[in-house]
Amino acid sequence: MVRFSSVLVCLVAVKSAAAFAPSPRHAARSSALQMTTDSGAKDPIKVGVIGCGRIGIVHLGAINKAPGVIPVVVSNPTISKAESAAKTFGVPKFTSDAMEVITDPDVDAVWICSPSQYHADQIKACAANGKHVFCEKPIATDLAETVEAINACNEAGVKLMIGLQRRFDPNFLRVKNAIQNKEVGDTIIIKTCSRDPSPPPYEYVKGGGGIFNDMAVHDLDMTRFLAGTDPIEILAVGSCHIDKSIENLPGSEAFDTASCIVRYPGGVNAMVDVCRQSSYGYDQRAEVLGTAGMIATDNVYPNTAKIYRKDFTGNADMPFDFFLSRYFEAYVTETEAFCKSLVEDTPVPCTGTDGLVALVMSLAADKSAAEGRWVKFSEIIEQVYCSSPTECSLLANSDAFPEGFKPSKNIQDLSNIISPDVDQQKKGGSLMDKFKEMLWG
Amino acid sequence: MVRFSSVLVCLVAVKSAAAFAPSPRHAARSSALQMTTDSGAKDPIKVGVIGCGRIGIVHLGAINKAPGVIPVVVSNPTISKAESAAKTFGVPKFTSDAMEVITDPDVDAVWICSPSQYHADQIKACAANGKHVFCEKPIATDLAETVEAINACNEAGVKLMIGLQRRFDPNFLRVKNAIQNKEVGDTIIIKTCSRDPSPPPYEYVKGGGGIFNDMAVHDLDMTRFLAGTDPIEILAVGSCHIDKSIENLPGSEAFDTASCIVRYPGGVNAMVDVCRQSSYGYDQRAEVLGTAGMIATDNVYPNTAKIYRKDFTGNADMPFDFFLSRYFEAYVTETEAFCKSLVEDTPVPCTGTDGLVALVMSLAADKSAAEGRWVKFSEIIEQVYCSSPTECSLLANSDAFPEGFKPSKNIQDLSNIISPDVDQQKKGGSLMDKFKEMLWG
Amino acid sequence: MVRFSSVLVCLVAVKSAAAFAPSPRHAARSSALQMTTDSGAKDPIKVGVIGCGRIGIVHLGAINKAPGVIPVVVSNPTISKAESAAKTFGVPKFTSDAMEVITDPDVDAVWICSPSQYHADQIKACAANGKHVFCEKPIATDLAETVEAINACNEAGVKLMIGLQRRFDPNFLRVKNAIQNKEVGDTIIIKTCSRDPSPPPYEYVKGGGGIFNDMAVHDLDMTRFLAGTDPIEILAVGSCHIDKSIENLPGSEAFDTASCIVRYPGGVNAMVDVCRQSSYGYDQRAEVLGTAGMIATDNVYPNTAKIYRKDFTGNADMPFDFFLSRYFEAYVTETEAFCKSLVEDTPVPCTGTDGLVALVMSLAADKSAAEGRWVKFSEIIEQVYCSSPTECSLLANSDAFPEGFKPSKNIQDLSNIISPDVDQQKKGGSLMDKFKEMLWG
Amino acid sequence: MVRFSSVLVCLVAVKSAAAFAPSPRHAARSSALQMTTDSGAKDPIKVGVIGCGRIGIVHLGAINKAPGVIPVVVSNPTISKAESAAKTFGVPKFTSDAMEVITDPDVDAVWICSPSQYHADQIKACAANGKHVFCEKPIATDLAETVEAINACNEAGVKLMIGLQRRFDPNFLRVKNAIQNKEVGDTIIIKTCSRDPSPPPYEYVKGGGGIFNDMAVHDLDMTRFLAGTDPIEILAVGSCHIDKSIENLPGSEAFDTASCIVRYPGGVNAMVDVCRQSSYGYDQRAEVLGTAGMIATDNVYPNTAKIYRKDFTGNADMPFDFFLSRYFEAYVTETEAFCKSLVEDTPVPCTGTDGLVALVMSLAADKSAAEGRWVKFSEIIEQVYCSSPTECSLLANSDAFPEGFKPSKNIQDLSNIISPDVDQQKKGGSLMDKFKEMLWG
Repeated sequence: MVRFSSVLVCLVAVKSAAAFAPSPRHAARSSALQMTTDSGAKDPIKVGVIGCGRIGIVHLGAINKAPGVIPVVVSNPTISKAESAAKTFGVPKFTSDAMEVITDPDVDAVWICSPSQYHADQIKACAANGKHVFCEKPIATDLAETVEAINACNEAGVKLMIGLQRRFDPNFLRVKNAIQNKEVGDTIIIKTCSRDPSPPPYEYVKGGGGIFNDMAVHDLDMTRFLAGTDPIEILAVGSCHIDKSIENLPGSEAFDTASCIVRYPGGVNAMVDVCRQSSYGYDQRAEVLGTAGMIATDNVYPNTAKIYRKDFTGNADMPFDFFLSRYFEAYVTETEAFCKSLVEDTPVPCTGTDGLVALVMSLAADKSAAEGRWVKFSEIIEQVYCSSPTECSLLANSDAFPEGFKPSKNIQDLSNIISPDVDQQKKGGSLMDKFKEMLWG
Repeated sequence: MVRFSSVLVCLVAVKSAAAFAPSPRHAARSSALQMTTDSGAKDPIKVGVIGCGRIGIVHLGAINKAPGVIPVVVSNPTISKAESAAKTFGVPKFTSDAMEVITDPDVDAVWICSPSQYHADQIKACAANGKHVFCEKPIATDLAETVEAINACNEAGVKLMIGLQRRFDPNFLRVKNAIQNKEVGDTIIIKTCSRDPSPPPYEYVKGGGGIFNDMAVHDLDMTRFLAGTDPIEILAVGSCHIDKSIENLPGSEAFDTASCIVRYPGGVNAMVDVCRQSSYGYDQRAEVLGTAGMIATDNVYPNTAKIYRKDFTGNADMPFDFFLSRYFEAYVTETEAFCKSLVEDTPVPCTGTDGLVALVMSLAADKSAAEGRWVKFSEIIEQVYCSSPTECSLLANSDAFPEGFKPSKNIQDLSNIISPDVDQQKKGGSLMDKFKEMLWG
Repeated sequence: MVRFSSVLVCLVAVKSAAAFAPSPRHAARSSALQMTTDSGAKDPIKVGVIGCGRIGIVHLGAINKAPGVIPVVVSNPTISKAESAAKTFGVPKFTSDAMEVITDPDVDAVWICSPSQYHADQIKACAANGKHVFCEKPIATDLAETVEAINACNEAGVKLMIGLQRRFDPNFLRVKNAIQNKEVGDTIIIKTCSRDPSPPPYEYVKGGGGIFNDMAVHDLDMTRFLAGTDPIEILAVGSCHIDKSIENLPGSEAFDTASCIVRYPGGVNAMVDVCRQSSYGYDQRAEVLGTAGMIATDNVYPNTAKIYRKDFTGNADMPFDFFLSRYFEAYVTETEAFCKSLVEDTPVPCTGTDGLVALVMSLAADKSAAEGRWVKFSEIIEQVYCSSPTECSLLANSDAFPEGFKPSKNIQDLSNIISPDVDQQKKGGSLMDKFKEMLWG
Repeated sequence: MVRFSSVLVCLVAVKSAAAFAPSPRHAARSSALQMTTDSGAKDPIKVGVIGCGRIGIVHLGAINKAPGVIPVVVSNPTISKAESAAKTFGVPKFTSDAMEVITDPDVDAVWICSPSQYHADQIKACAANGKHVFCEKPIATDLAETVEAINACNEAGVKLMIGLQRRFDPNFLRVKNAIQNKEVGDTIIIKTCSRDPSPPPYEYVKGGGGIFNDMAVHDLDMTRFLAGTDPIEILAVGSCHIDKSIENLPGSEAFDTASCIVRYPGGVNAMVDVCRQSSYGYDQRAEVLGTAGMIATDNVYPNTAKIYRKDFTGNADMPFDFFLSRYFEAYVTETEAFCKSLVEDTPVPCTGTDGLVALVMSLAADKSAAEGRWVKFSEIIEQVYCSSPTECSLLANSDAFPEGFKPSKNIQDLSNIISPDVDQQKKGGSLMDKFKEMLWG
């Protein structure tokens, strides 16, 4: 049992305090009064933000608070949104053109908060311009493009952090810590459950890549995060219960409900169930049984009040029902983490490979549900890189992949198709060792 | 039942976003790229902060985030602390001398975060220099001084907000809202309970004014906040259980545990119990029974995880056990509220009178415990202003009090000894009406 | 933390098993088959039950299950109810006349489940006929009559157990055990809260003795049970919120809501609040803070299910809202306890003195609320036995009280007016020692 | 939301009251006193109980309480246990030979509480002797034997009830009711979780039929009970974490942990996970998501007390950790239900077919885990009745199965191999209709 002591909280207060510092402002008067100077400080990291929608605004706020980092330019296709964000946060430049951010010589790092379809190209453009990248999940919905984007960063020697925000939520993090500290012994089974407050519109679902890609991917990643190792194979099944209009869409786009079992080494299994509608708010829970006990999280309510009336007794308010309220703290924390990684030049906590593996897992789930059988993750890689001549040739001609690359049996062998990232390149020792070290500490 | 909807949360996100804006920073380049200008904006309110201890730092961070307000000077007797805070938050000036803050011609408003014994004098100095004041509770531990300080502000026409932070905690606020919205019908009984993680040292207790003054005062204020009206009388009792060394201190300084019943109009009673040690973290709960149900709050845990092991099943972590972690959000919210009140020139949500009444309640509790009987609050006022010739003469000669002032039977008649505050003065109509409006909306 | 182990539960199963045995039934056939005989067994205790209302039926069922005890006669003024109960439980005799039960030569012990106004006379009749007595609370609503009834039993050498059933509820018992086992250290404060599902009709309240007598008495007794010692004085206050028709009834009959503080030795205070309406079912909770922690009980729900819908998340069902469902187990357990006490001839767990002290506490609460001051419990005894010449003479001429009896300052000195009960008489040593031993083990 | 009202609870009290009645006992005396007679009553159903272990004792106690049913003979190989049980419950005859119970001409119905390996033969012997049968799960571990035993009862026209006790637990029942009452809309997903307090010894696991047969079978049955329809296919996976000594046992005997997905019609999936060790007591929960919400149960604790100490805050006691304490109420209720079915001659609530389907589901899980693929339940039936010549010939020559029986694709077509049971035979209409009606009301 962890007690959050005074000491810890003091550190938190100091951290929060440290987070507010803008550039100094000047003035002058006498005696005891002194002017604040900034002599010894390092130059701040300068940052651009692409996309001023809700999620861009949250990241911009977090960047603005983070020590050692300042936002210098923001972009949004509707320029009024960019202007408004710039004024609110005191960002000196704004533009309607994302490329102006990416090519801005003042910019050291770019936060990509644009719609998913632009991610891969923008990442590659950042790499080409030598900018570090923070990109909201997904890198791309296409596996080959994902690999390309990652390798572009790795080869350009820029950091790439993927925003799998659920890893930074204090509740899921607590489960991770319990596992790491053996508070429940050795892991036996991992269970996660995700239910969205309400289903997306038909237009979003159609062409959206299906329920495993656009929804369960977070849970699949969470099982891997909690397992602390790479999965072996997956079994998935889906169905449609809420909005029957999607029932005729292809593949897993026809599902609003899905269940998976993911097999991990050592007999550890993860069970995941997702649904696009919960009716009672955002339902996102994890449960881990270990040889010495169980840890389980509950949903998040805006306060602790309970109410007792003649027709019910329970929580005074509903759980959060919007991703920005449920995960506000997680979004802020992930941006703080990347800022820290930039300022201190330490490895990012959530790599391109993490994003890539999450995609592979969701593609395998798709295949499993379609074919009604266990699917090994290596099948997905083989399929992409060998079954289509175009992609095989792309692969063959790409500098991104080492000579003799062969799609392989294990997800760990993604290291064959992914070049070492900038943080790995800074370390000595065998590449595979470094890779594993980076992945699992 | 309240659902925190997407719309609401969007507003929250916008609010949080808006909270980060420092002054603009400049740069220049072409085409789509534009420079952020600040033409139409109002001049920001300039703020000084006295005291750079833990609580000063929290307020400074909140001020730094608040829109329309900027910190321009901070002070602390140990100047290195002031310098460090100034650097962290980019405050241009710092000093060891609080008066330099109060007299600074750049400063519009002052946050007084110094030890309690300096509060009254610093408030009066602020008033004399025409500065608005935010002061952490208490205004003073002495009733006459409290009245003087409040009236100094009122007569100088500056705003005075008292930091009774528990009113801004989301859990207690939810109870207040339930009462206002009649979610539990008409209030029948109010119960609050406060237990500190561990008792203060002997040196703090000795001369500290006793358990009602330095601890129960928050609960007494909370009962009045929840009741939404002024109390009639109080019955209190105390005892010593934890640290027997304090047992021989005078009056309620000898107590580490106390219970009160506060009678409110309409047969509503409030029951309060406090203890200086809970062993399981900060225990601060409220419960209200109404004619249609009950609402009750629980303590605050750092996450929702529960753990199940062979020797216990319960919360994975302990409740917060430090006032800054338990009430961090409340401290930030109260400073945001005062900043908003400054920027929009609206009445402060927690007035000098609120601080004064809380003090009167705790003094009455002291007297009740000493004399073993119900004590009316008017007794305290009469006692202060009539029993001592010095104070009576002070009262008689003070411009602060209207001619014909007579200590009276009802706490409401505090309006006789307190002049209208700056926000009341801006309104028309009868003074008493305005007073009531200010108190209870 | 207590684990209810297999061993313990086996004992429970055995106990439950043992509880079903009626008298043997006979039959005959060959070989491995054998007839059950009953040779070595003791004669069972024969029991009569007065009153076949709901509560009588519950006790009858429990008696029927208890080993070593059999019901032989039941009575009810409406004889059809007695007949029906007799048939259901296989009781051989039934009658409309309670005295037929009390004088039945077959009967060893009587359960008095008649309306309260008959209790005292029936107890005295039982004593006169040498029958042990179980009597539902109260013994009488009048103090002198209560003393008379108790002393009648004591002098006749019959056991008297009072049904203060809440002491046998597993939730309150758990709190008692925590205190005895020092699981929360030394007791600092005791809090109980009782709220009935809905207020009784005007006719019940009028002449019913007021809220302290007919309702809070259970809580007052519970604070004494948990404190493990006798109280010193009480402060009470009441008001009317639900049904304004009772507002003009005399004394505490006008209250539907009341609060008390009870002072116990060692600075331990108990806070009690009661209300005649909770709207959300039976609300009966206890909380004890000790030097090492807190223990608190919750209400009882029919199952563990929680439900999550678009308008609430909470318990799938309401808490029990009827005294027989809420306290069914407690009623059964108290009767089992008296059966055990009869069969093994051990002291009863809840004595006539317990019932008497509870009455004194409620009378003192009444007086405190009427006079707005702390009331010592000895005042009640003095008042009854000295202020009225009639009662004083009753006292003087009664064999029930020792020579030289003087109403005294301490509730412990009830031993002056109460003669030793049958279980005390069986012990050696000083009477006062035995008395204390009986009271607090 | 269901409120357990006074009326309902009165009925419960009456029911409980009614439950205690043994045969009448006689006596005689005068006037108002009357003798209880039994004239109009029906003859009670006479019952024998095979097995006086813990579970036999629980059922014997429940039989003894049930109205209209009396135990007349009990058996146990160790005859002293039978004698002790007979004395405790006043059963007139006891024996070491189960067949003496089955052939006893006084006996109308037999409770089979012997070890599992005797179940099938004893059921068939009961059928041959025209006795109704209550049998603890399983009927047999072998499918053909199970079918034979069921059909023996059906052809003999005796009732057969299988003790799947979890269906009678108030928590799981509440979930069933929520589904039936559409409290959470239409079912989307069903989740159950079972974890035993500690693993059985190696000797029990070896030859015990594996984790699906001896443990998950309860969960599989529960998913079918909650789904209210028959499943289509199953996917299972297992592993070994606790006691590595079992790892080399054959098939699912090597597993102490297993997960399943069961597909039901309409896209409803059930997810089941089981583990032989929970360390924190019996963990048995269900959760159902529907289109309008979710219902979920928690584990059962002996009381509602929560404790707060310096190192944890949570439940004062551990959940029940023994099947007899966890399911005591369920065992009693299932026996009460069969007694009611006997007395009123109504269909049994848990049929032989329910036991058979549960076995088929566990066999399919076994096969799925072994072969790593989805297994249809019809495969199991086909496999048993067609792959082995012996069993096929058994089938062909058995009167138990209709001419032209063919192992089929759907579990519903079990009706082809199972003859109509005694309750179905009493109804008119198409056999299949009646079958479905019986299964799902």
